[in-house]
Amino acid sequence: MVKNTMGEDVSRRDFMKVAGAAVGGLAIGAVGGYSLIPPKETIVEVPKDVPVAMDVPSWPWTYPKLDPEAAAQRAYDSYWVGGCSYAGFEGIVGELKAEVGFPFTQIPSQMMKYGGGGGLGWGMICGALNGALAAMNIISDSYAGIGNELIGWYTEHAFPVYEPSEPNNEFDLVTSVSGSPLCHVSVTTWSNTAGVKESDTERKERCARLVADVVKKAVELMNAQADGTFTAMFAPATAVTGCQSCHGKDGMLDNVATKDNCLTCHEDPH
Amino acid sequence: MVKNTMGEDVSRRDFMKVAGAAVGGLAIGAVGGYSLIPPKETIVEVPKDVPVAMDVPSWPWTYPKLDPEAAAQRAYDSYWVGGCSYAGFEGIVGELKAEVGFPFTQIPSQMMKYGGGGGLGWGMICGALNGALAAMNIISDSYAGIGNELIGWYTEHAFPVYEPSEPNNEFDLVTSVSGSPLCHVSVTTWSNTAGVKESDTERKERCARLVADVVKKAVELMNAQADGTFTAMFAPATAVTGCQSCHGKDGMLDNVATKDNCLTCHEDPH
Repeated sequence: MVKNTMGEDVSRRDFMKVAGAAVGGLAIGAVGGYSLIPPKETIVEVPKDVPVAMDVPSWPWTYPKLDPEAAAQRAYDSYWVGGCSYAGFEGIVGELKAEVGFPFTQIPSQMMKYGGGGGLGWGMICGALNGALAAMNIISDSYAGIGNELIGWYTEHAFPVYEPSEPNNEFDLVTSVSGSPLCHVSVTTWSNTAGVKESDTERKERCARLVADVVKKAVELMNAQADGTFTAMFAPATAVTGCQSCHGKDGMLDNVATKDNCLTCHEDPH
Repeated sequence: MVKNTMGEDVSRRDFMKVAGAAVGGLAIGAVGGYSLIPPKETIVEVPKDVPVAMDVPSWPWTYPKLDPEAAAQRAYDSYWVGGCSYAGFEGIVGELKAEVGFPFTQIPSQMMKYGGGGGLGWGMICGALNGALAAMNIISDSYAGIGNELIGWYTEHAFPVYEPSEPNNEFDLVTSVSGSPLCHVSVTTWSNTAGVKESDTERKERCARLVADVVKKAVELMNAQADGTFTAMFAPATAVTGCQSCHGKDGMLDNVATKDNCLTCHEDPH
């Protein structure tokens, strides 16, 4: 016969229930004048990973500094997966996913694919810039200074410089300065300089390397800002400042908002 | 009556205290001449939930269909918070956060702020388009068709149409067709048509309403695609198809990749 602590008869099963309930642990009863000591139990809470929708941190997200070369390599490789704008973004955000993880893992880099070919092939903002700027914008509320520097640098830089360690295509590429951050101007200028058709693989190899150049520069700028050593170097061309003296917001016409070189598209009427 | 292991009377509450204290280290004395040796401790492992970041779904994310008018209103309001590109994105993604929650809550809409003024004021892709296209790209791997339709529609649409129920500024705005998806062309064309300076509040009110128009159209296209009723209506202008017959990828020159109207920037040399 098994009795519980109140002297009531209980089956062994019920006794165990009482014992478990009593202590979180332990109950001690008297049986025929003897104390029965139930097994001692220790409750150990074992961590179990439970996926929950954790809140992401407030924007901007913390930037840990990245290796510009690793980001450039990732950008080059990513070009062949999802195009220029995806690669401009993934080169940076993919590195952050690998180095930091959450919250960067929450953003699908594919969301920037639309920027390819200057925005679904419309030849507007260079996709490498579009992707890189979005990435810079995630990790800094002071993205405007370094972002503007990136765009300005782009207009004056002879692309491509990057030499992939394992190129998708073995080409010895010529370089050109586009004078504009627009995809159409950049691609056509290079194609004409190189004597290469826009739809040739050689032009695609040029853009893949260009994305690596842009991402490397973007990371260098982000690192400099993180170190507190960023200084803006880019100054708009005279063709911009001259036109803007009338057409810009401080001019009498005040009907043009751009920093691009006006003479790329317009003849100077003066 | 409840007795403890030493045979002392204890209240039930005190018994529980004694039992609880004994666990994790109990020594039992002799009772009635018998030594009772406590059984070995039994470890009871209880899973304890530890929050870890839930993986977001694979891209593209499921789209539930949205109310175009609600998205337009959110876009208009968002313009005054974070500018045109932020508003183009937040109009859609903000609605998805409100209607669906996770995983859309994981993306900080501020990441698209850089697109303002056509990309940090460089006058490239209209920020409303840039933000809306990124949002469309999150929820569809068939973003190219509806995205291209949105851009094409933009070039032919007389903006702005949207009438906010609670406008930030009471203006009776004229409309203009930009003929281009570029911010600079769109803003300058409207400013010249309206006789309004680019930096005036009236021009900003125009852009706020334009973002609402663009987001409304984007949601209508996304809904049509979700319903399986989307049909592309936009066809490039003759100025594009004519030029592209030589300059496009099927032409002998093959040095231009764009769908924009060539004559916006170039004189026809033929």
